[in-house]
Formats: sequence, C-alpha cells, structure tokens
Amino acid sequence: MSVIDETLNANKTIANDYDPRQVKPPAPRLAIVTCMDPRLTNILQMLGLGVDDADLIRNAGTVIDDDSIRSLLVSTRLLGSSEIMIINHTDCGMLTFTDSALEDRLRKETGQTPITPARFYSFNDLEDNTREQMQKARSHPWISPTVPVRGFIYDLETGRLREVSPARATVAV
Amino acid sequence: MSVIDETLNANKTIANDYDPRQVKPPAPRLAIVTCMDPRLTNILQMLGLGVDDADLIRNAGTVIDDDSIRSLLVSTRLLGSSEIMIINHTDCGMLTFTDSALEDRLRKETGQTPITPARFYSFNDLEDNTREQMQKARSHPWISPTVPVRGFIYDLETGRLREVSPARATVAV
Repeated sequence: MSVIDETLNANKTIANDYDPRQVKPPAPRLAIVTCMDPRLTNILQMLGLGVDDADLIRNAGTVIDDDSIRSLLVSTRLLGSSEIMIINHTDCGMLTFTDSALEDRLRKETGQTPITPARFYSFNDLEDNTREQMQKARSHPWISPTVPVRGFIYDLETGRLREVSPARATVAV
Repeated sequence: MSVIDETLNANKTIANDYDPRQVKPPAPRLAIVTCMDPRLTNILQMLGLGVDDADLIRNAGTVIDDDSIRSLLVSTRLLGSSEIMIINHTDCGMLTFTDSALEDRLRKETGQTPITPARFYSFNDLEDNTREQMQKARSHPWISPTVPVRGFIYDLETGRLREVSPARATVAV
C-alpha cells in the first residue's frame, strides 16, 4: 500500500475524535521560515510556542526567495504577524551537494532542461547563508520596516538557537 | 518583550532536556506541500504520520511554484521521498482577497512597485486551485513520473481529507 493510502486510512479513524471547537481562528503572532527537514517539524515546541502562535513557512534549506517573500507578505500584511524569524539548522542537506552537480544529473536522467527552478540554493556556509536570507527579507520594499527580521541557526546536537548577526564580522587578513 | 525574545528565553530552558539521540537522521517517506496556516501545523498527526515520515513544505495557500518545485526535487531526487501529497484546506485566507487589491494597497502604502512577487496566488475555487497545483507538479519535467502526485482538501470542520480528482468533472451546461 502506498504511503498516501496509509495516511488516508489513518485519517478516517483519527478524524472520528476531531473536535473543530479546539481549532482557533488563525491569529499568528509571528512568521517563521525554516527548513522542510523532518528534524525541524517540532521547532515550535523547542521555542515554547503553541501551534496557534505562528505561520510556518518551510522549504528546502530555509530559502527566502520570491515565494517566501509572498508568504511573509500575506502573513505580516494580512494576517497580523508582527515579527519574522528565519531558522536555518546544522547538518542541512543543502550543504551536501552543489547546484551544478544536481542540475547535470537531472538533465542527464531526464533529457530535459526546464527553465525553473533557476537555482537549488545549495550552500557552503551556514552562517553566511542565513545572513543572506535575512538580507533578502529585510530589503524587500513591501516588508514593513517596523517588522523585525532576525536569523538563527538551530543546532541539532543541542536543541539550542544561536542568533546570526545581520552584519558579517570583519575578518583580519 | 518581543515574541522572538520570548522564544529565545523559552528555548534556553527547553533545550536543557534535549536529547540528540531522539532525533533520527532524515529519511522522509513522502513530501507534503501544505499551507503555512497555524491550523495545518498538526497535519501529520491527523494523517497518522510520525515527525520522521515527511518533508513538510509550507507556504501561503499551498502553492506549487518554482520554489515548491525546487523543494520537491530535493526531497524526491536527493532525500528519498517517493510520493507527493498536496494538501489545501477549507477556510484558507487566500480565498479572502484578490491579488490586485493587495498589490494596490501595498503600492500605495509603500510608494514602491517591486518586480516580485509576480503573483500572490489568491484564488476563488478551492478544488480548481488544488487541481492546478497538482498539474504544475505533475507536469514538471524533473519530477519523476514514478512519483505519485495527489491532491487533497483538508476540511477544518471535520478533520477529514478529501481527494481531488486530477481531471475536472465535465459540467452539463
């Protein structure tokens, strides 16, 4: 049986105990952008937040691009979120390959070269990458300057968040 | 205190009880695309799935665009997910506004007209919209034809999933 069919069977039973009165109307306090990685699925618990507290935007590698900006605008401009938290994590899969290697492989396997995605956003430096995503959100002209944009790295060894400074530290050379 | 500062304080305490041995290496069985809405945050439980079972891709309105395709490719081509599940939901905020009204408002409030996001993907018909997203994923040349792409509507009144047929029913006129 396919995984999806398993979930449909499970849902039929689980929904018998569902009480819609336990689901509050959405009133997110903040928007969180993080990775699609299963190890980030319980991130709200690690932050002491309830389910109702956040709009959760997730993609491969915690990327801020056109689509995350779109979601952040809906969250902050329409739904009332007042802060933006970008949470990258250690041991991210996007550190393990290069865009060009994956693109070459898919071109060979499929014989096709689609226009999109333009990039896979693999990266080498977790901190620089987090900073870059913060800057993309901060600099978008429709993200209100009154909405804080802060970036973090979640350490899967310790369960702790570390804040990433928006400015890169000056390195003596 | 800001919400983010609250979460940082909470994380300091919660992480004291964190055990990295309880976090399994990622081995997702399927990729799920759903909405950023807080009411969808517990969707895995409603499907009888464990945290480890799925890569979770979330954005405003369960949109399949360049970035969700990118994430789906990373999930299915690199991380081993073998099925794609697209889960829209009733009462979605994207049913409550139009792209042009939001764009007009943001242009007026900010005095700026950025190039992106090109669209907000607001929609009128939940089922048609779900079908459109399924088609975008299904037709991408790098999504393997061996990976099922199935679309659903999650009913917030009942907690039940309803599958959406890929083909629109013929309507007598």
